[in-house]
Amino acid sequence: MHEQFNFIIEILGTISFSMSGSFAAMQKRLDPFGVLIIAFVTSVGGGTVRDLLLDIPVFWMHDLLTCGVIIMTSIFTMIFKSLEKNFKVTLFIFDSFGLGLFTIIGIQKGINVNIHPLICIGLGTITGCFGGIIRDILLNRIPLIFRKEIYATACIVGGSAFLLMTKFSPLSYTFIQIFTILLIVAIRTFAVKYHWQIPKFYGHDHSSEM
Amino acid sequence: MHEQFNFIIEILGTISFSMSGSFAAMQKRLDPFGVLIIAFVTSVGGGTVRDLLLDIPVFWMHDLLTCGVIIMTSIFTMIFKSLEKNFKVTLFIFDSFGLGLFTIIGIQKGINVNIHPLICIGLGTITGCFGGIIRDILLNRIPLIFRKEIYATACIVGGSAFLLMTKFSPLSYTFIQIFTILLIVAIRTFAVKYHWQIPKFYGHDHSSEM
Amino acid sequence: MHEQFNFIIEILGTISFSMSGSFAAMQKRLDPFGVLIIAFVTSVGGGTVRDLLLDIPVFWMHDLLTCGVIIMTSIFTMIFKSLEKNFKVTLFIFDSFGLGLFTIIGIQKGINVNIHPLICIGLGTITGCFGGIIRDILLNRIPLIFRKEIYATACIVGGSAFLLMTKFSPLSYTFIQIFTILLIVAIRTFAVKYHWQIPKFYGHDHSSEM
Repeated sequence: MHEQFNFIIEILGTISFSMSGSFAAMQKRLDPFGVLIIAFVTSVGGGTVRDLLLDIPVFWMHDLLTCGVIIMTSIFTMIFKSLEKNFKVTLFIFDSFGLGLFTIIGIQKGINVNIHPLICIGLGTITGCFGGIIRDILLNRIPLIFRKEIYATACIVGGSAFLLMTKFSPLSYTFIQIFTILLIVAIRTFAVKYHWQIPKFYGHDHSSEM
Repeated sequence: MHEQFNFIIEILGTISFSMSGSFAAMQKRLDPFGVLIIAFVTSVGGGTVRDLLLDIPVFWMHDLLTCGVIIMTSIFTMIFKSLEKNFKVTLFIFDSFGLGLFTIIGIQKGINVNIHPLICIGLGTITGCFGGIIRDILLNRIPLIFRKEIYATACIVGGSAFLLMTKFSPLSYTFIQIFTILLIVAIRTFAVKYHWQIPKFYGHDHSSEM
Repeated sequence: MHEQFNFIIEILGTISFSMSGSFAAMQKRLDPFGVLIIAFVTSVGGGTVRDLLLDIPVFWMHDLLTCGVIIMTSIFTMIFKSLEKNFKVTLFIFDSFGLGLFTIIGIQKGINVNIHPLICIGLGTITGCFGGIIRDILLNRIPLIFRKEIYATACIVGGSAFLLMTKFSPLSYTFIQIFTILLIVAIRTFAVKYHWQIPKFYGHDHSSEM
C-alpha cells in the first residue's frame, strides 16, 4: 500500500515538473526537441542530485517508465497547450506540486538509507528545488527561488512538518504524506498571492554592491 | 581494433572541446590560466556527468594522458591563435566535432553497462552537450543550445541513427561510428548555415512572459 | 595531531564559506532562509563535487556537526552583521580563506585515495573554487573567477607549492599546510589590491564576439 502510494507520488511529481518545464520552455520559444529536453532536465534534475548525494543508482537511468512519462507528458503539454491561456499561472501550479511531491520523496529516500532526519530536510529541499533551478538557469530566467516570495522555505517547513508528524502523531503515513505535500503547495500559493516575505531582520548594508 | 578507434575518438573529442573552450575563453579575454580552466571544464564536463550517472569512476581523475592532452591543446591553441582570424567559426567547428564525438562515446559507455538503448540516447546527448553548456554558463554566454538552430536534436538524431545502424545494418562498427559522428557535425553545420529550425507546432502564448 | 589540525582546517573553511555566502546573500536582500540556503550551498558545494569525483561518501550527508556549523555561522553572521560596515571587503576576506583552506583539503583527500598529485592540484582548485562559483551563479553575480584579478591561479600556485614542499622540503606538514593556505590568501589579496593580471600573451581577436 505504501509502495503503491509512493509510486503514485513519484509519477505525479515527474508529471508536474515535466509540465512546468514544458511550459517554461514554450514560453521561451524553444523548438519541440528543446521543450522535451527542458522537461526532462526539470523532472530528473532534483532526483539525480539526490541519488548522487545518497550514492545510490540514479533513478531515471534504470527506469524506462519514468523517461516515458516525462516525454509523453511533455508531448501532451505541447499538443494541448492551447487549452491553457495563462502559462504563468499554470507553470506556477505545476512547479508548486512538483516542489511538494519531490521534497517528500527526497526525505523518504534519505530516511530509507539512515541519513539523519535533519539532514533529510536539507536533502528533500534540494530534491524539490533543484529541478526548477536548473530549468531556470538553462532558460536564462531569474530562478523562482530568488523572487521575493518564499520558495525553499516552503520545503523546509513542509519537510519539518512531515518528520514531526511521522514521529509524533498517530495519523496514518499516507495521510501525513498528502497533508505535507498540500502544505508545501499551500505555502507557495499563499506566499505568491499575498506576497509573504520573511522579514529581513538583518538590516541594511550601505556598501556599494559587488 | 575497436579499442584503438574508441581511444582515437576520445582523444579527438577531448582535443575538440579543449579547443572550443580555449577559443571561447580567449574571446572573453580571460588570462591564460583562465583559458586553461575553461578548456578543462569544457572537455571533462560531459564525461564527468556521464560517469557520475553511470556510477563508474570519473574518467579524467585516473587518466593523466587525458589531462595532459587538454592542457597541451589549450596551450597550443593560445600560442597559435593568430593563425586563426575568425574565432566564431573555429569555435563552432570544434564544438560540433566535440558534440558528435562525445555523443557516440556516451552512448557506447551506456551500452557497455547494459543501460537501455533509448536511455543511452539521452545519456549520449547529455555527454555531448554538457561540456558546452558549462562553458557557456561560466563565460556568461547564451548557451549554444538555446540559439534558434537545432543543437541537442543533432545528438538525438545522430545517436538514434547510431543505435539503429549497429542493430540492423551490416555495416562495420567503425564505419557506423564515423558516419554518425559526421552526421551530427553535418546536421549542426547545415542547421547554422541554413537556419534550420523545427517548426514550433505548439503555437503562441499571449500571457506576459515570466 | 594531523587529524586534529585537518579537522580545524575543515571547520575554518566551512565557517569561511558560510560567512562569505551569508554576506553575498544579504547583499542581494534574500530572506533569512535564503541566506541560510546560500551559506549552505557555498560551504558544501566544493566538497560535494570533490567527493562525487573521488567516489567517496559526500561529507556533509553524514556529518551533523558540519551542517550545524554552517547554520550557526550563518545565523551569527546575520545577527552580528551590523558590526560589519563593508560587506564587499568582508566577503572577499572570507572567500579568500575559504579558497585556501578548501584547496588544501581537496588536495589532501585526493592524495589519500592515491590520485596522481598533478590531478590533485586540479581537484584542490575545483574544491576551492566551486562553492564560490555556485554562490555567484545562484545569486546572479558575475563569478569572482571571471573578474580580471587572478583567482583559480592562486589555488594552482598554492596547491603546487603544497605538493612540492611536502615532497621535497624538511618542513613539518602542519607548517606547510598553514603556509600554503596563507599563500593562497596572500596571492588573492595582492591580486585584488594591486590588480595583478597574467599577461594575455595570446593577443587579440577582431571577429565579432559570439
